[in-house]
Amino acid sequence: MTTRAELTEKIIAHKTFTGVKWTDVAKEVGQSKEWVTAALVGQLSMTREQVEKAGNALGLKFSDEEMALLMMVPYRGSIPTQVPADPLIYRLYEVVAVYGTTMKALIEEEFGDGIMSAIDFTMDISRTEDPKGDRVKVILDGKFLPYKMY
Amino acid sequence: MTTRAELTEKIIAHKTFTGVKWTDVAKEVGQSKEWVTAALVGQLSMTREQVEKAGNALGLKFSDEEMALLMMVPYRGSIPTQVPADPLIYRLYEVVAVYGTTMKALIEEEFGDGIMSAIDFTMDISRTEDPKGDRVKVILDGKFLPYKMY
Amino acid sequence: MTTRAELTEKIIAHKTFTGVKWTDVAKEVGQSKEWVTAALVGQLSMTREQVEKAGNALGLKFSDEEMALLMMVPYRGSIPTQVPADPLIYRLYEVVAVYGTTMKALIEEEFGDGIMSAIDFTMDISRTEDPKGDRVKVILDGKFLPYKMY
Amino acid sequence: MTTRAELTEKIIAHKTFTGVKWTDVAKEVGQSKEWVTAALVGQLSMTREQVEKAGNALGLKFSDEEMALLMMVPYRGSIPTQVPADPLIYRLYEVVAVYGTTMKALIEEEFGDGIMSAIDFTMDISRTEDPKGDRVKVILDGKFLPYKMY
Amino acid sequence: MTTRAELTEKIIAHKTFTGVKWTDVAKEVGQSKEWVTAALVGQLSMTREQVEKAGNALGLKFSDEEMALLMMVPYRGSIPTQVPADPLIYRLYEVVAVYGTTMKALIEEEFGDGIMSAIDFTMDISRTEDPKGDRVKVILDGKFLPYKMY
Amino acid sequence: MTTRAELTEKIIAHKTFTGVKWTDVAKEVGQSKEWVTAALVGQLSMTREQVEKAGNALGLKFSDEEMALLMMVPYRGSIPTQVPADPLIYRLYEVVAVYGTTMKALIEEEFGDGIMSAIDFTMDISRTEDPKGDRVKVILDGKFLPYKMY
Amino acid sequence: MTTRAELTEKIIAHKTFTGVKWTDVAKEVGQSKEWVTAALVGQLSMTREQVEKAGNALGLKFSDEEMALLMMVPYRGSIPTQVPADPLIYRLYEVVAVYGTTMKALIEEEFGDGIMSAIDFTMDISRTEDPKGDRVKVILDGKFLPYKMY
Amino acid sequence: MTTRAELTEKIIAHKTFTGVKWTDVAKEVGQSKEWVTAALVGQLSMTREQVEKAGNALGLKFSDEEMALLMMVPYRGSIPTQVPADPLIYRLYEVVAVYGTTMKALIEEEFGDGIMSAIDFTMDISRTEDPKGDRVKVILDGKFLPYKMY
Amino acid sequence: MTTRAELTEKIIAHKTFTGVKWTDVAKEVGQSKEWVTAALVGQLSMTREQVEKAGNALGLKFSDEEMALLMMVPYRGSIPTQVPADPLIYRLYEVVAVYGTTMKALIEEEFGDGIMSAIDFTMDISRTEDPKGDRVKVILDGKFLPYKMY
Amino acid sequence: MTTRAELTEKIIAHKTFTGVKWTDVAKEVGQSKEWVTAALVGQLSMTREQVEKAGNALGLKFSDEEMALLMMVPYRGSIPTQVPADPLIYRLYEVVAVYGTTMKALIEEEFGDGIMSAIDFTMDISRTEDPKGDRVKVILDGKFLPYKMY
Repeated sequence: MTTRAELTEKIIAHKTFTGVKWTDVAKEVGQSKEWVTAALVGQLSMTREQVEKAGNALGLKFSDEEMALLMMVPYRGSIPTQVPADPLIYRLYEVVAVYGTTMKALIEEEFGDGIMSAIDFTMDISRTEDPKGDRVKVILDGKFLPYKMY
Repeated sequence: MTTRAELTEKIIAHKTFTGVKWTDVAKEVGQSKEWVTAALVGQLSMTREQVEKAGNALGLKFSDEEMALLMMVPYRGSIPTQVPADPLIYRLYEVVAVYGTTMKALIEEEFGDGIMSAIDFTMDISRTEDPKGDRVKVILDGKFLPYKMY
Repeated sequence: MTTRAELTEKIIAHKTFTGVKWTDVAKEVGQSKEWVTAALVGQLSMTREQVEKAGNALGLKFSDEEMALLMMVPYRGSIPTQVPADPLIYRLYEVVAVYGTTMKALIEEEFGDGIMSAIDFTMDISRTEDPKGDRVKVILDGKFLPYKMY
Repeated sequence: MTTRAELTEKIIAHKTFTGVKWTDVAKEVGQSKEWVTAALVGQLSMTREQVEKAGNALGLKFSDEEMALLMMVPYRGSIPTQVPADPLIYRLYEVVAVYGTTMKALIEEEFGDGIMSAIDFTMDISRTEDPKGDRVKVILDGKFLPYKMY
Repeated sequence: MTTRAELTEKIIAHKTFTGVKWTDVAKEVGQSKEWVTAALVGQLSMTREQVEKAGNALGLKFSDEEMALLMMVPYRGSIPTQVPADPLIYRLYEVVAVYGTTMKALIEEEFGDGIMSAIDFTMDISRTEDPKGDRVKVILDGKFLPYKMY
Repeated sequence: MTTRAELTEKIIAHKTFTGVKWTDVAKEVGQSKEWVTAALVGQLSMTREQVEKAGNALGLKFSDEEMALLMMVPYRGSIPTQVPADPLIYRLYEVVAVYGTTMKALIEEEFGDGIMSAIDFTMDISRTEDPKGDRVKVILDGKFLPYKMY
Repeated sequence: MTTRAELTEKIIAHKTFTGVKWTDVAKEVGQSKEWVTAALVGQLSMTREQVEKAGNALGLKFSDEEMALLMMVPYRGSIPTQVPADPLIYRLYEVVAVYGTTMKALIEEEFGDGIMSAIDFTMDISRTEDPKGDRVKVILDGKFLPYKMY
Repeated sequence: MTTRAELTEKIIAHKTFTGVKWTDVAKEVGQSKEWVTAALVGQLSMTREQVEKAGNALGLKFSDEEMALLMMVPYRGSIPTQVPADPLIYRLYEVVAVYGTTMKALIEEEFGDGIMSAIDFTMDISRTEDPKGDRVKVILDGKFLPYKMY
Repeated sequence: MTTRAELTEKIIAHKTFTGVKWTDVAKEVGQSKEWVTAALVGQLSMTREQVEKAGNALGLKFSDEEMALLMMVPYRGSIPTQVPADPLIYRLYEVVAVYGTTMKALIEEEFGDGIMSAIDFTMDISRTEDPKGDRVKVILDGKFLPYKMY
Repeated sequence: MTTRAELTEKIIAHKTFTGVKWTDVAKEVGQSKEWVTAALVGQLSMTREQVEKAGNALGLKFSDEEMALLMMVPYRGSIPTQVPADPLIYRLYEVVAVYGTTMKALIEEEFGDGIMSAIDFTMDISRTEDPKGDRVKVILDGKFLPYKMY
């Protein structure tokens, strides 16, 4: 039986070898590159039609079992440990570990007591050219949800 | 002996009681609200002059011992556990836990193998008005550092 | 310097010794017993007026420092370990540990992919009389938030 | 050898692909949807007759080995880590982490020293329509067990 | 402010120095030695009358603050780590770690699916004389609670 | 290669399906039901003769490889996490977590400084009939070993 | 209130400053240097007479509270984390981590199934002169306890 | 592909079934029983010649792949968790957990600041006959390495 | 499906058996021995040409699947636990655990507030002959990145 | 009672406020800056004379209790968690986490099976000027200790 983790590895290995781009798959599927990548690495679910389009763009013919895995709502969680070991992902965790209380203080000053939703939420990742070295720009944009425990 | 953690609590309690804003302190100190808040909650160090200006804006007269604490390079880390318990901060952690490998895949496609710096880095937190509920916008903007292990 | 945790202990000790009820404090403050208890044990913030009313109901005169602590947005998290040791609280954790995937499967069948908010959320705790032994009824009622990563 | 975890995956994948509902299986088996789902995802045991009825409703013919797995009392525990990573299940954990001491305070005020059973216990998950967004209602209803260490 | 943990230490230190016995305190309080010891080391709550009797037997005059601590329902949990370091307590943990699944198999064969209550529960600790070395006999006696998730 | 864990699962699945009892196997092997169950779930080692008798009683013909596994001294430890998730086993852990220091205090008062052996040790699990609900009686009976670090 | 941990620090600091030796204290108390050191760093309990002799040898006059702490059976455990950070103590842990299964295999071959007692146990630490560098010799000598779960 | 852990299990199972002794293998290989056992359970590496001799003594013909595994420098670490669950190995850990600071104090008094090497190190495990029960004697003998951070 | 971890094991086993050197592979690939070893044990990615050259030098013909694994950007992290168990790697961890704050203090005195990059970074491992025993010299050379949170 | 951790904070705060340099203290004490800093932040012990010289250089007059703390062999370990939160120290940990097996492979190829000592060990931290940004150079230089388990 193929697990979802194995399917993720298969998709990334195939992509590396063939040189297809996430952005190409995204265009074919008709969603943002962020959405499509998250779905293919196992954090969001796709419809059967989206799975087929993604397979076409990747040049992969998914079996019924693989299609079912890509259509199921996944048990989410993409990193194997609580503190990520991979340096790229660790830097994002570091922002939360170091600046978490700063972000809490500023969001609460602006909005009052509540949270930024991680569900009604978009993410945009882009490159900013900079002569001192290009920059990664990550925009997290989530609905503010005020505390409502009555 | 006052510890840095106790000083952070004292500053936030004073701020809540008096209603001073981080943005007001930031204006007085002449830095962004993100920078000033991070410094006052113990994640960045200030010069003596910045400490004095911050004290004025807050209406607090820091002792020599407290000034020294605010001037030291802190041992960074703002959350008491590896997985934050506070819901506002947890949602930011959840973005990393769920979408970490997605962000890794997209940054590597755009930039090649490397990381987004969490040191040469700015953070901007703002409100976007939205009729369906205002949104929190968090922009993380860090220099891309390509892998250079020779 | 008093910490918020010590203030929580002081409030509960005083309540035990004097026999005041959470429900009495709730009436005075004009909020549900769930809300008032959560605020006094350090998980929600109160206004100055609510703090004063709660103090009256409890027969406690809070100092300025204590008032500030009760007015601050707290760093939330009420249990000292990830798995709670206290049996009453552990049973609630056990429900999540054992039936978490069951609840996920049923909520997703009914609502599609998304979560139950723990922010726009009410909690109601009541007693149901039962000849075989009275029962605790806990109602968690949270807004469904569909997944919206675009 | 098939493990119980693999059988759970097989059942959910089959259900996703075919569109059968937990509620349909529940009707066939003659138990609540909560009970049947918990049994099929590996947290409760079924009789041979219940297994056969569930198989019919799902359109799956279980082998003897699979039937034995569904009939065994399981080693319970449905989440792979102590703090769940999946956002839907995390929100339920968050309720315990944030409001655990509040619930303890209120149950003890109403009932005295004791616990809510997680064994003599029912769970009901339903939808409440609400113009501001439908709500998930989770009712936990457990026998109160007073502390009886003599 | 005295915490409950400090009060426990004070009581045990006083007991060691004066040579009073738990069994003497138990007689005065009119409960089993197991109950009285558990209450004085902070795992059960006493009435004001019981606190006073215990104080008399120990030769300690508790302050109002100390009485309140002994009267509160405690946040239970007596060991500072998940795996106890103290050898006497570790051996009890070892029984669970090594023979836990054996006990589960035997209780389920005898009673069906369910648990032994740790709430409606008595504990008896006694000495059995034995020429090859006296033995510690621990009897745990808890109500069987059959699984009742409907 | 079969692992000991897989063999344990095979034995329990076979037992569930055929309805053989641990007590029947124990009679055939000529040891207590506690001993035989512990050996078959992988916490004690058997002789070749005992393995053969157990196989006969279970209606299973063990291969040479399986016999070797049942004859080896196992690496002991029956629960997959430090805090057990299974509710039946958790209740036993809870007794240690909550009453560990109570048991320590009482054993030390009766015997002096030392431990109850978990090696020279018997365990007896039985049912006590009780009109208010039958009770599980667990007797742990271990040799007292006084501290002898000279 | 002085805690036992603080008393340990006070004793070691005093010893360092004055240059008294553990061996001198041991002679005065009339026990091995291993026993006396273990008692003074909080892992064994002393009689009142032993406490007084140790105080004389150290040149410290213990208060009643400090005497009581040294007379109590301690909650044992001398290292603050499960994996010790101190390099000297880590090397001892490393022996267990790396050679634990080797020691298990050899003890079981020689003695059969059982353990080496850590209670009926002596420890001897000495220096062996060696031209290539003197050596630390640690002898652990514990009674073999055969497994006796009947 | 065979892993080193699987090869260890295969060797121990074969040894149990055939009754060969570690001491016999040690004689054939021409090393101490401690060295040979450590190598065969995967904590030290052997030469090809030693592997062949060990195979002869055990009555096992290793494949090329298995020989390579026994010849590689292993990633050391023999216990699956930080705190070992197996009682025999736990007792050795307990010695470190309880007496670690005692051993540190005594080694430092005798040798000054430094460590006992766990690399230039021998281990000797033997039986001492004793009418009150035979004893396990473990001698750890490591070079003292004085602290030399200049 | 081969995983990257399995491929690492295969490469090291092959290398041990055939006696090829990392330095030989490095010469063929035209990179430092540090870079090539890191790539082959799964911490850096290679181009197809580098993979082919490495295969030639090792005497291994990689399949397409294996080539893809060596070409993918890996999920980095080379040790299976947070604190490494292997003694060689632990000693490096110990340097960080014991001297981490020392290094922080010295780097900050020399450079101001910032970090040493672990991305724009080289590592050089060499032998220094020394009559008292040869020495391992590890040079870590990373770009200083000053803190730039604006 | 002052603890060693508090003394470390006091020394660093004083140094920040007065602007004394570790290199100045090192000159006065007559040891390397690495040695003196490690001693003052609590990882090495000093003689009374060294403590006095350090006090003079810092402009601090240590009390007898503080001198005793600086003269004791410390319980080493400078970071409060197993994975350091401070970004500067984390980068050093990351080198071990990512390149640990690479370093192991290279050291073993050059030296055979053994370790780099972290005890007979020097550390040198310096700045290399570089037009693309100055670099931190960390040299770890430890004696190679070959494995000698006989």
